[in-house]
Amino acid sequence: MVSKNQIKYIRSLHQKKYRNSSGRFLVEGEKVIGEFLHSDYDLEALYVSSEYLFEDFSIDKVIVKQADLQRMSTLNTANNCLAIFRMREPLPIDADQLVVALDGVRDPGNLGTIIRLCDWFGVRHLLCSPDTVDVYNPKVVQATMGSLTRVDVSYADLGSTLKSLGLPIYMAVMDGNTVYEASLPAAGVLVMGSESHGVSDAIMEMAHLGLTIPKFGLQQTESLNVATAAAILLSEFRRNGLIQK
Amino acid sequence: MVSKNQIKYIRSLHQKKYRNSSGRFLVEGEKVIGEFLHSDYDLEALYVSSEYLFEDFSIDKVIVKQADLQRMSTLNTANNCLAIFRMREPLPIDADQLVVALDGVRDPGNLGTIIRLCDWFGVRHLLCSPDTVDVYNPKVVQATMGSLTRVDVSYADLGSTLKSLGLPIYMAVMDGNTVYEASLPAAGVLVMGSESHGVSDAIMEMAHLGLTIPKFGLQQTESLNVATAAAILLSEFRRNGLIQK
Repeated sequence: MVSKNQIKYIRSLHQKKYRNSSGRFLVEGEKVIGEFLHSDYDLEALYVSSEYLFEDFSIDKVIVKQADLQRMSTLNTANNCLAIFRMREPLPIDADQLVVALDGVRDPGNLGTIIRLCDWFGVRHLLCSPDTVDVYNPKVVQATMGSLTRVDVSYADLGSTLKSLGLPIYMAVMDGNTVYEASLPAAGVLVMGSESHGVSDAIMEMAHLGLTIPKFGLQQTESLNVATAAAILLSEFRRNGLIQK
Repeated sequence: MVSKNQIKYIRSLHQKKYRNSSGRFLVEGEKVIGEFLHSDYDLEALYVSSEYLFEDFSIDKVIVKQADLQRMSTLNTANNCLAIFRMREPLPIDADQLVVALDGVRDPGNLGTIIRLCDWFGVRHLLCSPDTVDVYNPKVVQATMGSLTRVDVSYADLGSTLKSLGLPIYMAVMDGNTVYEASLPAAGVLVMGSESHGVSDAIMEMAHLGLTIPKFGLQQTESLNVATAAAILLSEFRRNGLIQK
């Protein structure tokens, strides 16, 4: 059973301001909740529509009606389980590795996809400008498919943070050096801007090298989606590392 | 002015069966409609909420209330314009170039992103299995950002079509050859499966080479999104072409 007040509290976590004031966020679906249960995120509560879910875990479960799960859910069609987890503090950024920084990326699906990419390519830290979409937005959490448990995401002023890191800064731009010909280090920062506005001018001035993915199609083609551009650039960084070995 | 019947007809085009029976599809938003107006797609009707939209084009416009646009729209918040275009027949596939084939990709956003990628990397033809999402699905059309006007998309049985093309076949797989070390031709087919099911067995047997993007993160990381994997693999095909020149 779940009380009306509890459902109201869960629904408040759909919104960023209540997530931030409570330090809690929602995760839905057996697979993604399972990944969080296996991680160092702490569970606050788990709601399931069947007692047979999560049998392998020695945790308390609240069995609720599917209709109640639908009331709690951020999805049009609720899953058979929903969990509340506590936010964790990201670890400090190690300045001896590849870091990805996002400047004003607003789309939740893009942020989620980029977190999955970081996970795949072994990037442990993602740095976001304050106007980048909230990582605990339910759409972001779902799009990461559990990768969020393996990537630290922090929000900070990009200019001062990049300066303090002291790493070489690479930026995705439309008219820079061909990424296929660039020599890319194992430790550095790759900065990606939003599709519509690119990287802001103040940050752009800090770049050591602008990187461009060559276009093979017609001139009318405008830009790649920020997540697909990140995929290609991260692959190039790691490819360089493999070849240099 | 727009009649109730006209709105009903436009709303029917939200569904695949009515798009197919009428040979018509919807495009929303000034930028994307503009790309279709500049292409060889034929316009059937254009609805706008302001006479100042599309002033550069000598075309008939129907001025309607924003509330009517909302009734026609597939979006939660309608744009200030909506157009009906006629479908076109894709050109036959030239067997002297790079072709992308999709096996059972169901997500509209992924198909749209892959069409943008094809456009960027100069892939003129995208071949889809019959169970791949409809290219004229409004979410696909919007996600292509106009790239659909420059990429031919056809639906056919993959097995027989790939056989008749006679091109070398490359498949995205989890345990194939590292793509960074593969020699990739200028003419061939790159086959991508769905994230959950991969490429079907019958198609898998036709592969000349399985391609894998190396994983640099922890073992728990399961798979890349199909569109980001396509981005990396297409970039590798074109990179090979540049280096061989």
